[in-house]
Amino acid sequence: MSERTVYLSGEFVPESEAKVSIYDRGFTSGDGIYEATRTFGHKLFRLDEHIDRLFNSLAYVRIDCGLSRDEMTAVSEEVVDRNLPLLGGDDDYALWHVISRGMRLPGTSTMTGATVAIFPQPVDFTRYARSYLEGVPLVTPATRRIPPQSLDPKAKITNKMNHNIAAFEAQQADPNAIPLMLDLDGNICETDTANVFFITNGKLCTPKARTVLGGITRMVLFELAAKLGIEVVEDDFTPFDMYAAEEAFISGTSGTVVPVRSLNGTEIGGALPGGVSLRLVQARNDMIGMDCVAQSIRHLGDNESKELLSAWEERQG
Amino acid sequence: MSERTVYLSGEFVPESEAKVSIYDRGFTSGDGIYEATRTFGHKLFRLDEHIDRLFNSLAYVRIDCGLSRDEMTAVSEEVVDRNLPLLGGDDDYALWHVISRGMRLPGTSTMTGATVAIFPQPVDFTRYARSYLEGVPLVTPATRRIPPQSLDPKAKITNKMNHNIAAFEAQQADPNAIPLMLDLDGNICETDTANVFFITNGKLCTPKARTVLGGITRMVLFELAAKLGIEVVEDDFTPFDMYAAEEAFISGTSGTVVPVRSLNGTEIGGALPGGVSLRLVQARNDMIGMDCVAQSIRHLGDNESKELLSAWEERQG
Amino acid sequence: MSERTVYLSGEFVPESEAKVSIYDRGFTSGDGIYEATRTFGHKLFRLDEHIDRLFNSLAYVRIDCGLSRDEMTAVSEEVVDRNLPLLGGDDDYALWHVISRGMRLPGTSTMTGATVAIFPQPVDFTRYARSYLEGVPLVTPATRRIPPQSLDPKAKITNKMNHNIAAFEAQQADPNAIPLMLDLDGNICETDTANVFFITNGKLCTPKARTVLGGITRMVLFELAAKLGIEVVEDDFTPFDMYAAEEAFISGTSGTVVPVRSLNGTEIGGALPGGVSLRLVQARNDMIGMDCVAQSIRHLGDNESKELLSAWEERQG
Amino acid sequence: MSERTVYLSGEFVPESEAKVSIYDRGFTSGDGIYEATRTFGHKLFRLDEHIDRLFNSLAYVRIDCGLSRDEMTAVSEEVVDRNLPLLGGDDDYALWHVISRGMRLPGTSTMTGATVAIFPQPVDFTRYARSYLEGVPLVTPATRRIPPQSLDPKAKITNKMNHNIAAFEAQQADPNAIPLMLDLDGNICETDTANVFFITNGKLCTPKARTVLGGITRMVLFELAAKLGIEVVEDDFTPFDMYAAEEAFISGTSGTVVPVRSLNGTEIGGALPGGVSLRLVQARNDMIGMDCVAQSIRHLGDNESKELLSAWEERQG
Amino acid sequence: MSERTVYLSGEFVPESEAKVSIYDRGFTSGDGIYEATRTFGHKLFRLDEHIDRLFNSLAYVRIDCGLSRDEMTAVSEEVVDRNLPLLGGDDDYALWHVISRGMRLPGTSTMTGATVAIFPQPVDFTRYARSYLEGVPLVTPATRRIPPQSLDPKAKITNKMNHNIAAFEAQQADPNAIPLMLDLDGNICETDTANVFFITNGKLCTPKARTVLGGITRMVLFELAAKLGIEVVEDDFTPFDMYAAEEAFISGTSGTVVPVRSLNGTEIGGALPGGVSLRLVQARNDMIGMDCVAQSIRHLGDNESKELLSAWEERQG
Amino acid sequence: MSERTVYLSGEFVPESEAKVSIYDRGFTSGDGIYEATRTFGHKLFRLDEHIDRLFNSLAYVRIDCGLSRDEMTAVSEEVVDRNLPLLGGDDDYALWHVISRGMRLPGTSTMTGATVAIFPQPVDFTRYARSYLEGVPLVTPATRRIPPQSLDPKAKITNKMNHNIAAFEAQQADPNAIPLMLDLDGNICETDTANVFFITNGKLCTPKARTVLGGITRMVLFELAAKLGIEVVEDDFTPFDMYAAEEAFISGTSGTVVPVRSLNGTEIGGALPGGVSLRLVQARNDMIGMDCVAQSIRHLGDNESKELLSAWEERQG
Repeated sequence: MSERTVYLSGEFVPESEAKVSIYDRGFTSGDGIYEATRTFGHKLFRLDEHIDRLFNSLAYVRIDCGLSRDEMTAVSEEVVDRNLPLLGGDDDYALWHVISRGMRLPGTSTMTGATVAIFPQPVDFTRYARSYLEGVPLVTPATRRIPPQSLDPKAKITNKMNHNIAAFEAQQADPNAIPLMLDLDGNICETDTANVFFITNGKLCTPKARTVLGGITRMVLFELAAKLGIEVVEDDFTPFDMYAAEEAFISGTSGTVVPVRSLNGTEIGGALPGGVSLRLVQARNDMIGMDCVAQSIRHLGDNESKELLSAWEERQG
Repeated sequence: MSERTVYLSGEFVPESEAKVSIYDRGFTSGDGIYEATRTFGHKLFRLDEHIDRLFNSLAYVRIDCGLSRDEMTAVSEEVVDRNLPLLGGDDDYALWHVISRGMRLPGTSTMTGATVAIFPQPVDFTRYARSYLEGVPLVTPATRRIPPQSLDPKAKITNKMNHNIAAFEAQQADPNAIPLMLDLDGNICETDTANVFFITNGKLCTPKARTVLGGITRMVLFELAAKLGIEVVEDDFTPFDMYAAEEAFISGTSGTVVPVRSLNGTEIGGALPGGVSLRLVQARNDMIGMDCVAQSIRHLGDNESKELLSAWEERQG
Repeated sequence: MSERTVYLSGEFVPESEAKVSIYDRGFTSGDGIYEATRTFGHKLFRLDEHIDRLFNSLAYVRIDCGLSRDEMTAVSEEVVDRNLPLLGGDDDYALWHVISRGMRLPGTSTMTGATVAIFPQPVDFTRYARSYLEGVPLVTPATRRIPPQSLDPKAKITNKMNHNIAAFEAQQADPNAIPLMLDLDGNICETDTANVFFITNGKLCTPKARTVLGGITRMVLFELAAKLGIEVVEDDFTPFDMYAAEEAFISGTSGTVVPVRSLNGTEIGGALPGGVSLRLVQARNDMIGMDCVAQSIRHLGDNESKELLSAWEERQG
Repeated sequence: MSERTVYLSGEFVPESEAKVSIYDRGFTSGDGIYEATRTFGHKLFRLDEHIDRLFNSLAYVRIDCGLSRDEMTAVSEEVVDRNLPLLGGDDDYALWHVISRGMRLPGTSTMTGATVAIFPQPVDFTRYARSYLEGVPLVTPATRRIPPQSLDPKAKITNKMNHNIAAFEAQQADPNAIPLMLDLDGNICETDTANVFFITNGKLCTPKARTVLGGITRMVLFELAAKLGIEVVEDDFTPFDMYAAEEAFISGTSGTVVPVRSLNGTEIGGALPGGVSLRLVQARNDMIGMDCVAQSIRHLGDNESKELLSAWEERQG
Repeated sequence: MSERTVYLSGEFVPESEAKVSIYDRGFTSGDGIYEATRTFGHKLFRLDEHIDRLFNSLAYVRIDCGLSRDEMTAVSEEVVDRNLPLLGGDDDYALWHVISRGMRLPGTSTMTGATVAIFPQPVDFTRYARSYLEGVPLVTPATRRIPPQSLDPKAKITNKMNHNIAAFEAQQADPNAIPLMLDLDGNICETDTANVFFITNGKLCTPKARTVLGGITRMVLFELAAKLGIEVVEDDFTPFDMYAAEEAFISGTSGTVVPVRSLNGTEIGGALPGGVSLRLVQARNDMIGMDCVAQSIRHLGDNESKELLSAWEERQG
Repeated sequence: MSERTVYLSGEFVPESEAKVSIYDRGFTSGDGIYEATRTFGHKLFRLDEHIDRLFNSLAYVRIDCGLSRDEMTAVSEEVVDRNLPLLGGDDDYALWHVISRGMRLPGTSTMTGATVAIFPQPVDFTRYARSYLEGVPLVTPATRRIPPQSLDPKAKITNKMNHNIAAFEAQQADPNAIPLMLDLDGNICETDTANVFFITNGKLCTPKARTVLGGITRMVLFELAAKLGIEVVEDDFTPFDMYAAEEAFISGTSGTVVPVRSLNGTEIGGALPGGVSLRLVQARNDMIGMDCVAQSIRHLGDNESKELLSAWEERQG
């Protein structure tokens, strides 16, 4: 077995053969939804919540995926199981679901059923490894987040061009810059792939659910904050609030708590990650039983890893 | 030769083999653009304008398709030529371009070039055939058109979920209803696939370019109106304006001038198509050298065709 | 005594003689406000709160009704008392107040005082009787709720055309559909006559007070929720939130807790009413000392009543 | 015959007997529309356009008035004719149409047909008489015009509370102040009863049709401007534009061209009416064959009239 | 020493010599920020919070003032100390910081450093003295508060024209009127110089932080409310909410709790200050160890003072 | 005479002595307005229009400058005349007017009159010299232009922080980048100091007057376009329209027609300046009787000048 196996509309196929017609409406018009679920230590994390969100997305776009919740769960786990042999001991997967409405069969008016693709992608740990200690730069692009009355951000739809254009705009300032999108009223929303948080007066602040994806890591952070006695504030915030914050970070399925170094060139807080962020990272590591930051760092070159791991030790005291 | 031939990223392949990886960003995240160009009498109509708009869309989303304008034109014509043998004498094609950003090769950080798919779809003339004389019902959905500051409607992006949801809402009222989308200020914009026009005081009124696709048929209608001495008004209009109109129609690449029978159940105007609409249809037929309405009707069953053709004759006086 | 008695600007008159001039500004320009207060078991419920809201509405529109709060209360009770003899034992009244600014006396520049009409309307129990078990369909119309900066929704003004047009749009989908209006940002507000609630994660969610009428039943539900230990969340919500909800209902003065069966055709939750809704209905029944659902059902034809009453028993366990 | 005669739902009755039930939905919920048409020299002016607008309003609110356009016209003329004997030689009428949806008959679910009231009101010439030479003060209130996506301003609906509240706010500054309402974007719209115009660089500027009533006097002014070679500009304007204008006026059915003296206390232009305004007044007088300004002035007390008439002569050169 | 001493960019100078070039960007383009900090009993109150806000403002506008937080604090205190000899025993100062970006030296492309001006202004106690018992009238102007996506209200920028124009509009109604500005959605924000509060159902209500200056007195009031067990509600409110309130007041650095008598002419509550307001005033007086209301009143003429002081005693019971 | 002379509130003083108190409201709160008028060949250009706009700004902010239009004109010319001796033969001035409301005299409640500063600044020709041939890069910042309902952009107010912050955001991408600000709806408005134009289908397109400064150069360009037979389109445009344009430029008092090289990194058009832009530059040069581009270039170092002048010759054919 030399390549990964993928579930595609009822069958398990090698990834190189996992293809859809160019007539598939997922390809021609973005007529689909998706999910991405992480394994930590080779185990799917919060799969139930991801499946719930998947079915909420499907209901919103009126796609019938042809599988029950239980079947979807079983297939998802099977895809991971089948691909574990290809995964290094210190590696992990992001399991993707992409489901489109299918297509009209050429020359007929018959629609196929939904196209259901479920596939694992090895996490690229090198991407954020340095960022856990050095932070990422955020830039607010001119392009505004699509408003809920046009397309609800809580549904994970395969229509990402709004975010892509925001990213291009931000990357003018710095190729590594991450776009911090604003909503139509100028409130901060989310990045192209992550939720955003900051700490003010020791409170964990984050945009309200209305204009952001209902991130599952976001929910996990609320649980951790509750456990640590950190007050959570969901509200409408502006870039000013983040400039004036004590610390800030972004969170997504892959990079759980990635510190923010600056917003529009203005540095935020001091040593990275900030103190509250660090407590959340550690609590998160405890919850899943492994040090995800160290895991990321270990994927860098030997010397780089060594130096960063020791910095990470030191930061944790 | 029993099936159509498709251009896919440098090669001509049978349509049944024209497939893209499930990792293609066009499929996973709607990271692409598209065009649809009609043949009339087996000849591509206004291909130059479509290629211009295609390249404007590409520039907006920062995709390099790897082909020059001339190459794109040549390939487009070749796709049609290769597929003409499969086209009935009274049939025509819509030629589709779908171009995505490509994908990251699994296990690498290398992006492939763009995925370029060009394929012909026989026009389904039966879809609008009756509508040319009976009109279509429009319904305004609650979902608003994505605003230009989020994603510019002038670019044809493969992110159609906003329109799809609008269509589902409209179809609650009538399975044949067509959604007349409003912008964030409640101005009428466009349907899910067509521009919209109405006649008031003998003037041809249509929403401003800002919140609608810059339809090529729309431009053609401006030319025809100029030729016929019909004044054109581009402005912000509301449903009230259409309720009070003398006649109304929708226009797209396939159905050029399809009369509107009603908006939210309120009938608009009298005999269909209305007088000004009819003059535009006839001028359009003259321009392309064939009676497109009759062509559509001829695709219906024999009896139905006969009756409708005679009604169409009569309506034209 | 064969017809109801009505209070009209200082006098008690038979309803057939209760008339206002066509010059009354309430008739010519909607220059007035109103209230509707229920009796339960022949007793006015929360009259004080209704009178408070009435005077808040009057202050907002600068109408002096000529009566003090106490006088208004006394007259209101007298109207009910005078009309109790005409009320069946299992029936109840909605007591209406309609107060307009009055009119300019013809040929003069003298304004009359306010026109004050107070009249009882027997509740039409059959209207919602089936809905208590079968739910109502909601549809989001394109027309948006008038924003507070134009006219504050917290004042009950006799300017209902915005709601009426929303209702016409919703009824295209289903003659029984109830419009779920959205505000200018696409947040759900209220129906044409009721507040709206849904349950997510066991919490009772409802739109913030800013864009909805400050319903008195809404306040009662907050009290009941507090008593039952159900957390209440007032926030900005979208249709997506309701699609994904566990249960939903609408509440007004007449139909207290009427389950929602579907929103835009998407079914919400399972058995109707949902579990939390049911607890609220029962707590409400306890509060007023009668089973209002059963009361409604009893007004249907005998067979229908019997079957539904038994279903209602069963649903309550 | 000592009092005016009114048409009420099929009958001609004395105005003192022209009454509607307090249950009429026009009275209880503003469920109606209206028109006001002037006579000039005892002849109805532009009745056709008013009837057109009346039927457009009816279509928008889905009220069937039960009369055809021709019948409506005939009845309207008859109401004027019947009341001419009561009209002084130098007086004129505003003919009002108020049409509500009717009411549900008490104790039934049966709706009556529409309530149709048509009645003449003698024009109160004294109201604007001085203003023709001295101008009126405008004040921008905080309350914004209801937006078209909530209720279309082109329909004349008996829901005037938005305008009334704006008027109360403006009158804080001056009991004679007239509210110049702004739309949600801060563009000037209209007063509570009139359209608004100003002259800049010799051009006649006025807000676009989208957020104002489609005034018939407004249309007449466009015709007059065309005849006089004055360019008309319909656009989005702000208070700044009016502060900087050369002259300004308001126009309605009764006061055709009433000069604006000031906006928010800032004086606009010089001698009143301004030069362009004066040409329009004169052209208007020519069109209808009488000097409406002089007519108004003549209704003031003798001395006041004399002085003003001579000022009016002088102003006209 | 006959005149006050001022800190100006590194030097202490007499106020009559404290000048900046007309080329200073603070003067030519409002390119600066400011603060105003009160002394109570000759001691600076909450200087730390003011310095924090000052540095947040500086970070937002990218001005480097050339002083550390500690230096800024030290200089601020020194300015007060140097000027105490000029201050009457019953008087107090407002200490102003105005910091501009400096200027380009004429004929060069060199920017000077920031201009830093720190100066004391004796509080004009007579301004609000009567208002503590009689209240102030608020009026909502048509001009809307600049939205956060244009300029964040949390930064104290020397760009006050938006507020100034609002004040001119409000003062049309009453020369003493204070503008209660609304945001773009019609929510109440703040006056031209103060935050605004009202009491409903015994709760202390105030607009959310998003569209108002983050007043330090506002924070103090939250602390006092917490101490007194008064619930605080930060939310979006409309003028209607204030019309219907039990009491209302404005709060700023100078006038801490100044009762509101009326909004747009509608009286709010009863005896002034209202009961909750009075408790807050008293708690505030306790916190700073002096009766600020009495201090203000004592600055009026003898008779006026006497009468008001006795009224103030009486009001406090 | 070694330094320039400045007019300051009634006196002519050397610029080094031209100072205002730190209490001047122009300095403390941006309570002022301004103008900048160019000389071309040592003669003030369109001074009348600048004085008109100055007085419109003054009226909007209710400042009485204490000078009549004629006096303002005379003083303005005198300032230039007095400073001509200090101006090199190939140099020119921008004449600035900055007028603030003045200040309250310390320790009193007396306001001084307005502070009126009029001063010449030598044009920094090197700033744009290369740009005439190489173009400038535009970047759309996230910060939106203050909307007209908060502060009208047509008034030149000394409140420039909104523009300054936009500039900081744009300069993240490139220190020479110029911010192309968008309005609240995402339409392009203006840069921080210039109007913006682009050419599409040979037409000269520019944002509508509503959200931009009413540039005098903008008006001059309309005149030149009319003379050259170039159609002008004022409308709402988006960044997409500029990406797709044939050429683009910015225009202000100093740099009249400065080509745009790119928007957000996307190159616009071909050789710079584009063909239509070039015709406008040449017509502008003809109008004022000198080659302003060559003048700018001559101020660069000798070699650089030589090379660029020859390129400029060549570009002009």
